[in-house]
Amino acid sequence: MGTGAGEAGRVWAHVGQRFTETGYDVVVLGAGRMGTACALFLRRLAPDRRLLIVERGGLPNEEGATILAPGVWTILDVPAGRASEARWVNAQVAGELGPLPFQPRPLLDLHAGAVPGGRSTTATLARFPEAAALINPAALPFARVDEEAATYRPGSVALACGQGAVRAGADLLLNTHAHLLPGGVRLDRLTVTNTHEVVTHETREVRAGVTIVALGADGPPAAEQDLGAHTAHGRAYRQTPRLNTPSDDRTPTLRAGGLTLRPVSGGFTLIPPVHHRDPQGYVPTGGRLTGVPVGVRRETLEDLVTLMDALPPLATEALEVGRSLADVPGAWLALPGGRADAPPTHEEVAPGVHLLLGGPLADTLGLAVAYDLAARVAGVEGRPWEEG
Amino acid sequence: MGTGAGEAGRVWAHVGQRFTETGYDVVVLGAGRMGTACALFLRRLAPDRRLLIVERGGLPNEEGATILAPGVWTILDVPAGRASEARWVNAQVAGELGPLPFQPRPLLDLHAGAVPGGRSTTATLARFPEAAALINPAALPFARVDEEAATYRPGSVALACGQGAVRAGADLLLNTHAHLLPGGVRLDRLTVTNTHEVVTHETREVRAGVTIVALGADGPPAAEQDLGAHTAHGRAYRQTPRLNTPSDDRTPTLRAGGLTLRPVSGGFTLIPPVHHRDPQGYVPTGGRLTGVPVGVRRETLEDLVTLMDALPPLATEALEVGRSLADVPGAWLALPGGRADAPPTHEEVAPGVHLLLGGPLADTLGLAVAYDLAARVAGVEGRPWEEG
Repeated sequence: MGTGAGEAGRVWAHVGQRFTETGYDVVVLGAGRMGTACALFLRRLAPDRRLLIVERGGLPNEEGATILAPGVWTILDVPAGRASEARWVNAQVAGELGPLPFQPRPLLDLHAGAVPGGRSTTATLARFPEAAALINPAALPFARVDEEAATYRPGSVALACGQGAVRAGADLLLNTHAHLLPGGVRLDRLTVTNTHEVVTHETREVRAGVTIVALGADGPPAAEQDLGAHTAHGRAYRQTPRLNTPSDDRTPTLRAGGLTLRPVSGGFTLIPPVHHRDPQGYVPTGGRLTGVPVGVRRETLEDLVTLMDALPPLATEALEVGRSLADVPGAWLALPGGRADAPPTHEEVAPGVHLLLGGPLADTLGLAVAYDLAARVAGVEGRPWEEG
Repeated sequence: MGTGAGEAGRVWAHVGQRFTETGYDVVVLGAGRMGTACALFLRRLAPDRRLLIVERGGLPNEEGATILAPGVWTILDVPAGRASEARWVNAQVAGELGPLPFQPRPLLDLHAGAVPGGRSTTATLARFPEAAALINPAALPFARVDEEAATYRPGSVALACGQGAVRAGADLLLNTHAHLLPGGVRLDRLTVTNTHEVVTHETREVRAGVTIVALGADGPPAAEQDLGAHTAHGRAYRQTPRLNTPSDDRTPTLRAGGLTLRPVSGGFTLIPPVHHRDPQGYVPTGGRLTGVPVGVRRETLEDLVTLMDALPPLATEALEVGRSLADVPGAWLALPGGRADAPPTHEEVAPGVHLLLGGPLADTLGLAVAYDLAARVAGVEGRPWEEG
């Protein structure tokens, strides 16, 4: 039944497995890193509460922002006053959550003008010969290095947290679309027909004392449509094109003009800056590069074009801009408060219904905010990153 | 022929009037306020240049940003160092361009927190009883007044400048869609069929020594699609809903939280803040207010909802949010450099092809920037707003 310590929860992966539960103490919607982490921490902090995780896809979720998140931990991204929280997150992904891919990897932050703590880019590159071919030091003469930075895989974190939560007694219902109801959720269990159409196989209502909406960018619209709760949160569509320039474990993460070049699988993933939210009703479309349709949206192309002089490989065929949107990995990112620079947050949008949002800074603070919500729901005082 | 002083230009209003010209010294695309003003100033500064204005619609243009521009001149909107330019613009619309609607009208700038030059809102409202019913002084306790502010009608300015340019010798070709070519333009003269379809009646090519692209938000895409010129400009869709709360000539213009309430025709036009550009491919859509579809886009609704406590009429039926997009006046606004706070600008995007952009600050600086481009094309040194 998933109650009590030591007993694992149940997993319903497909509609052939009967689901007859009618109520839980806590239902978590979404098995991305925010939802799974919150579920895991809840199992630890309140093992007596019956808990169900509901996920539209599988575990790990193949869609959504978690799989495409950069997984770059750098002190440069940590808002003032939250360093101890961020270091706690670092310790979690570095081993506290179990053996996960984690790579200490300095981050080079490159600038056209002087910055506090900046040194000569040329001198800095002597330490990082793997990065030299990517950078035009004349265009980016100032560099600072975050020696503490690291890279990891948010998708692996979500998988580990989800599995950990189930081992610790959480139930997990996959391939299920959830709608919020007052006091609970309506669950549409999905199946695929012979003609590859996704349809609802059966619908159940489940009572929930507490509902945690961890649906990423889909969370605020769900709260609004299902409960009529107004929120001020926004979203942005972020594409992460690939750059096929060689990298290895010694290659630092690079950042210039807000663009992050994250070494991965022998090349780089480009993580463009999020300047502001996209308007409601925006449908992502590819742009044009010298008149030719490509899969990268125009706003991102502009960011890349601006940096072509400073980062010469961007001007070559090493940059995969694709021919259409489907060619370029991309996901909707939640923007807490509608802002591109706001940290992860949670908010009680209706009695017992908590919205949990990661967003652009989830790599450094997401797990701590998930913990904070779990502790609040569990009625636990104190946070592990607080001193003494 | 429209050359030489004293002789008026010709006007082609419909395809029944034969157009056989093959070349001009200068072609101005767009008869909004930027294009017509630039054409008028060019006739004055370089009367020997043969000049053609091409407009897709009529004069004044019923579409585009000019007709819906607020027409609010306030020193609060003038960027640092450009006050003399802005005062020159003020003098133009106040009478230099001829007798135009112009209303000296103080602007009340209201704030929740203290601002430099701010006084008590309650004390300030004693001077402006017409505005008292609109404002909750407890929510906006600080006010400053721009005593120099005025309101006018940018559409009237465009009409006066266009007519003035023609009287001064400019030719005017209406109902014509122009495409940029190297060294000239291709002109599609439009007509309407019996079934109300707009079709191209005939196409002509016209050589132009200089082309001025004053197509508002459509200018940068035209330069990009027709000439392959990359630009960094953006656009935003701004809706200007009506607020049916009484106003008269003594009612000041109000501003709070970036929202401008512009008295007009016995009520108010609301001019919401432009926070940032809209992405390429965005199609404006209405939002929802307490679940009901309305014509005002979501981002603007959020701005209005935030101010409902401070400006109580916004929470009443006096606010016309419409039922669909067609119910709410709105237009695409050019954003020079992609920024919402950038002043009007011009840029030579290809040899002899100048992009002329108004944007959010066109009310205070647009005519000066149009003059600056005219003077540059005419090879004239000095600007009338420069001292001594």
